Amino acid sequence: MDTAGMLLGVDVGGTKIAAVVAERGGAILSKVRRPTPAALGPTGIVAEITDMLAEVCATAGVSMADSAALGVSFGGPYDQVRGVVRDIPNLPDWGGVRLHELLSAALPSLPIAIDNDANAAALAEWRFGAGQGCDHMLYLTMGTGIGGGIVSDGRLYRGLRNAAGEVGHTVLVPGGAQCGCGHRGCLEAYTSGPAIARRAVEKIEAGDGGDFSSVLADAGVALADLRTELIVEAARGGSAFAVAHLEDTAFYMGWGIANAVSILAPELVVLGTVATAAGDMFMEPLRRHVVDLAMPGIGEATRVEPAALGDLVGDYAAVALAAEMLDVEGAS
Amino acid sequence: MDTAGMLLGVDVGGTKIAAVVAERGGAILSKVRRPTPAALGPTGIVAEITDMLAEVCATAGVSMADSAALGVSFGGPYDQVRGVVRDIPNLPDWGGVRLHELLSAALPSLPIAIDNDANAAALAEWRFGAGQGCDHMLYLTMGTGIGGGIVSDGRLYRGLRNAAGEVGHTVLVPGGAQCGCGHRGCLEAYTSGPAIARRAVEKIEAGDGGDFSSVLADAGVALADLRTELIVEAARGGSAFAVAHLEDTAFYMGWGIANAVSILAPELVVLGTVATAAGDMFMEPLRRHVVDLAMPGIGEATRVEPAALGDLVGDYAAVALAAEMLDVEGAS
Repeated sequence: MDTAGMLLGVDVGGTKIAAVVAERGGAILSKVRRPTPAALGPTGIVAEITDMLAEVCATAGVSMADSAALGVSFGGPYDQVRGVVRDIPNLPDWGGVRLHELLSAALPSLPIAIDNDANAAALAEWRFGAGQGCDHMLYLTMGTGIGGGIVSDGRLYRGLRNAAGEVGHTVLVPGGAQCGCGHRGCLEAYTSGPAIARRAVEKIEAGDGGDFSSVLADAGVALADLRTELIVEAARGGSAFAVAHLEDTAFYMGWGIANAVSILAPELVVLGTVATAAGDMFMEPLRRHVVDLAMPGIGEATRVEPAALGDLVGDYAAVALAAEMLDVEGAS
Repeated sequence: MDTAGMLLGVDVGGTKIAAVVAERGGAILSKVRRPTPAALGPTGIVAEITDMLAEVCATAGVSMADSAALGVSFGGPYDQVRGVVRDIPNLPDWGGVRLHELLSAALPSLPIAIDNDANAAALAEWRFGAGQGCDHMLYLTMGTGIGGGIVSDGRLYRGLRNAAGEVGHTVLVPGGAQCGCGHRGCLEAYTSGPAIARRAVEKIEAGDGGDFSSVLADAGVALADLRTELIVEAARGGSAFAVAHLEDTAFYMGWGIANAVSILAPELVVLGTVATAAGDMFMEPLRRHVVDLAMPGIGEATRVEPAALGDLVGDYAAVALAAEMLDVEGAS
């Protein structure tokens, strides 16, 4: 095998970092994962990344200097025009950090593409997953937050300061549920993993828990520790409360997606995390709500599908950024 | 003056058609306007357009055959990939009409670009109006409907079947006010010209008309004939009801725009028609609501401005389509 021209990828999250070497077609040759050394700050984390890349290249028998490009999927808001991490409250060490400059200094021979994890995951699903061959795609995660990325004609639609795609912070209910962003009534405050659990707890505390008390008892879980995973599992097991709660969640998610569909007219919407785990019992009511609420003619024409890359999305996300950069350079 | 390489433009509306000749920089050299001969159907209308173009070219002393391109701003949904008018209930004669083919047969020497009027107006404001020099722009009209167009890096973001930009059909209130699209609770059902008047009538009929009965009496207007123009005029004249009604409308419009801003992260939102007429007393509360409801950091960074082209937008819209086509061809 020719080992030159490989793609390197790094997925930087709050708790762990993964580094991979992949072929141009996306096949992953080697991978290493380590805890994020948060206490060392951005400079220390960049040193850790360099070390991890050296390790995966050695394992794969690939020369880092001969690699084609490095993609970095970063778990925070990143302004790719200025090459700077945007300032947000929950990443206090990172605001204003010139990440592209730091990485380029450590890895001078490599072209480097950095983007936030939602944009990177959107590109990954478009290039290697559910969105292959599709011209206009919207990707949404349903994890800790509702991240989003828009792919149009094979490129990310980034908007001002690379901030586009925040479908999770469209407001459905002004003055409604508190959102982590500081506003109230955002889609994310009803449909993120933690929000789904919180809304279930509120229903149960209000005496509307139906058959769910036996689910909690059987699982030995206190109400305060309820997680969305248990609700999805209980729905699969036939709990009427859990099924109704997921259908209720599908209404909010379908509403938010419908609004994004009216604005973007994507060919395909790809949903990750909770949607992938819950499957048809969530996706079917959700698709009905998208058709009921999106611009007539457009909702019907837009496919809504679960993500295809599952837990590997972070690896492919970083690789997809490297591949996109080479495509753009090849085209220009 | 060199009269070769001019741009031709045609604005096709339900009641009138305008044809213009313009310089490449947008300056309009001649213009003619005629009623739309709707009874003649699409073929007859194309013949009328050809005749009108011959007239404006003759007036301007320009050879149609030497013109660089023709842009057509069409008052209905148009699929520019397939070159076909999309089927909608209120244009029964036009559904499926191959407008590009019809026009090309009548004007064989001219490159022709056709788009819906909202997309064309968005391009016009970007190229000749309020959006000059801006990378990411959202344009919204507030006329009979809420039309929308998205310009990104100097090109229209079109989405599947050229259907993107329907911010007016994002749903704010599921089950709410009836919208012309057949759904309920769309932004358009609260903020279009007719919707603003309808909501005022509902308030007055419910006994909440305050000082507006004297406005109606002074103007000699029956409640059933109330139009939004009178509400704007009364607000300028100090009517507390009219001012409060426009502020209420600014809340809905600000909410809808905020959601679009969170998704698109535009640098600039340009608002036409009612927003332009009402000015600051509408724009100021609206800008506050955009900041309050859009993704934190993005709402603050997005400018929201009235349109600059006023009643000339239709002429410039058609010319802008011709200019965009030449740019795209020049770049490829």
